[in-house]
Amino acid sequence: MRILVDAMGGDNAPVEIIKGSILAAREYGVKITLVGKEIEIKKYLNTDNETLAKLNIINAEDVITNDDKPVKAIRSKKESSLVKAMNALRDGHGDALVSAGSTGALLSGGLFIVGRIKGIERPCLAPLFPNGDRFSLLMDAGANVDCKPLFLSQFALMGKVYMEKVLDIQNPKIALINIGTEQGKGNKLVIDTYDLLNKMDLNFIGSVEARDILRNETDILLCDGFVGNVVLKLTEGVMSELIAQIKGELLKTTKGKLGGLLIQDSVRQLNKRFDYSEHGGAPLLGLKSPIIKAHGSSNDVAIKNAIRQSKLFIDNKVNEMIIEQLEMGGGIS
Amino acid sequence: MRILVDAMGGDNAPVEIIKGSILAAREYGVKITLVGKEIEIKKYLNTDNETLAKLNIINAEDVITNDDKPVKAIRSKKESSLVKAMNALRDGHGDALVSAGSTGALLSGGLFIVGRIKGIERPCLAPLFPNGDRFSLLMDAGANVDCKPLFLSQFALMGKVYMEKVLDIQNPKIALINIGTEQGKGNKLVIDTYDLLNKMDLNFIGSVEARDILRNETDILLCDGFVGNVVLKLTEGVMSELIAQIKGELLKTTKGKLGGLLIQDSVRQLNKRFDYSEHGGAPLLGLKSPIIKAHGSSNDVAIKNAIRQSKLFIDNKVNEMIIEQLEMGGGIS
Repeated sequence: MRILVDAMGGDNAPVEIIKGSILAAREYGVKITLVGKEIEIKKYLNTDNETLAKLNIINAEDVITNDDKPVKAIRSKKESSLVKAMNALRDGHGDALVSAGSTGALLSGGLFIVGRIKGIERPCLAPLFPNGDRFSLLMDAGANVDCKPLFLSQFALMGKVYMEKVLDIQNPKIALINIGTEQGKGNKLVIDTYDLLNKMDLNFIGSVEARDILRNETDILLCDGFVGNVVLKLTEGVMSELIAQIKGELLKTTKGKLGGLLIQDSVRQLNKRFDYSEHGGAPLLGLKSPIIKAHGSSNDVAIKNAIRQSKLFIDNKVNEMIIEQLEMGGGIS
Repeated sequence: MRILVDAMGGDNAPVEIIKGSILAAREYGVKITLVGKEIEIKKYLNTDNETLAKLNIINAEDVITNDDKPVKAIRSKKESSLVKAMNALRDGHGDALVSAGSTGALLSGGLFIVGRIKGIERPCLAPLFPNGDRFSLLMDAGANVDCKPLFLSQFALMGKVYMEKVLDIQNPKIALINIGTEQGKGNKLVIDTYDLLNKMDLNFIGSVEARDILRNETDILLCDGFVGNVVLKLTEGVMSELIAQIKGELLKTTKGKLGGLLIQDSVRQLNKRFDYSEHGGAPLLGLKSPIIKAHGSSNDVAIKNAIRQSKLFIDNKVNEMIIEQLEMGGGIS
């Protein structure tokens, strides 16, 4: 097994990406190909010889940034670390790809260079979303802004396999994000998807209201990529706004200031719990080879975790299982 | 001017509804018709004779609750306070209707009994949404789960009139809730609506990301009713979950407990600022006569504010202005 790592993607590239790759090579024994500026990468390859033997480099002089237009960048920046890593993935020089770079470019490259699994209509971006003391898989978080019921039913099928094989959650509970819980509620997409999911061999438990998605019994939350992106970004926005406003209120009084000092540690703990980047990256499901999108602000441990995720993805044959499910009729009973 | 008030709708009906109506009659001098169980209502009509003269009652023996299916309830519960109030509104026995009852029933009744303004494709539910230290109008918050660009362009037009005439915000800034800020981003509905809004005589400032909708320069946030409902409910959900988790963390340590006591007042202040029910109800825009949906948990002051809102709506000729705009080509230049 060999994991390709985009050494130049993310806010802390290349240092933290390389450090995380070294940790993963040492801890999990996986071979890793770092893709990026060779001269830069070599500066940070300080490790024992045994680990060094597991690492190699594909030189790439260019970088795709978050300011690049995704589709255009994938087509024109042929010498970028991401395009070279994608080409290597397509050509079999690696079994999976981890990147903390531009989500848009990863989606475009996944679609145009790596390609979809035959029978899968659309790939899906599936990050973990905080749910009480644990996490749900949010599908789709922004890869497909306009969806059909068939797309969502395939997300459900892929999510089930991923949850069982990578996160070790058996027979995961699947729900639709909706504006009410009764059958017949929702927009056309949700109503039609509800009917389709009911016909499938899945643990579909119905709809969950947006008010309840941060604390409910669901393992997989289904929605189109527009709604998923709104959910993800709004959650971040509300949290940071609320914390900013609490700080503002506390600074108004001496009592508040003192209280603020006393609650600092607890708030730090809480931030950590809500930070899904701590819990690995988001898989792009439905591609011929797995791609894991690590959070842009990933440190070495986050990268190590994302590499572990991609290892589990391959070890436990997630894609083979998805293909098998498709061949059996896509889970429609 | 006469305002119809559904005396039986809401968590605190009829007591708080009646108290709020008395406050409004006294403070604004408006005539009010309370619709509901006459015997019940009369129990709480304790006020001076001058105010009493401004109040009358339409007896209604039945009540529509949140457990009733909206469309069915509007059709079958002919003796309910809401249906009788809607009939009175349609027949000209009042100029506006205020209710803290079921949103779904208000939407159905508005559509089937009161009816749309000629030329308006769909009515829109437009609550205030917290935005830094002030509020934006969220359109649509759930009346129309599947929208076309024309619907959203009409919401924008109605929102502009409402903001200028009722909330005294001139030339309000209008934005689309989107997954990115560049033109060309979004799902099909948003992209097509973007083009349409650009052609209209509105202060359209482009897209705003969900992450930023709680603190931005926009006065009117446009989206379809599915997304709007998700935005509204998720914001509530994230806030209550975050506050619950902060409490949980604080209770784990003595330092945290002490800090918690010290910050209590500040958090209470904050809750109040975020509570949009304090700032009046949500208008249902696009109907032949105005309907104001007060929050289900409204107290007397919230009801008084909602009545004030409906008074401003009539005084400032919001509907006349909307009709004028439509006759001038719907704002498309």
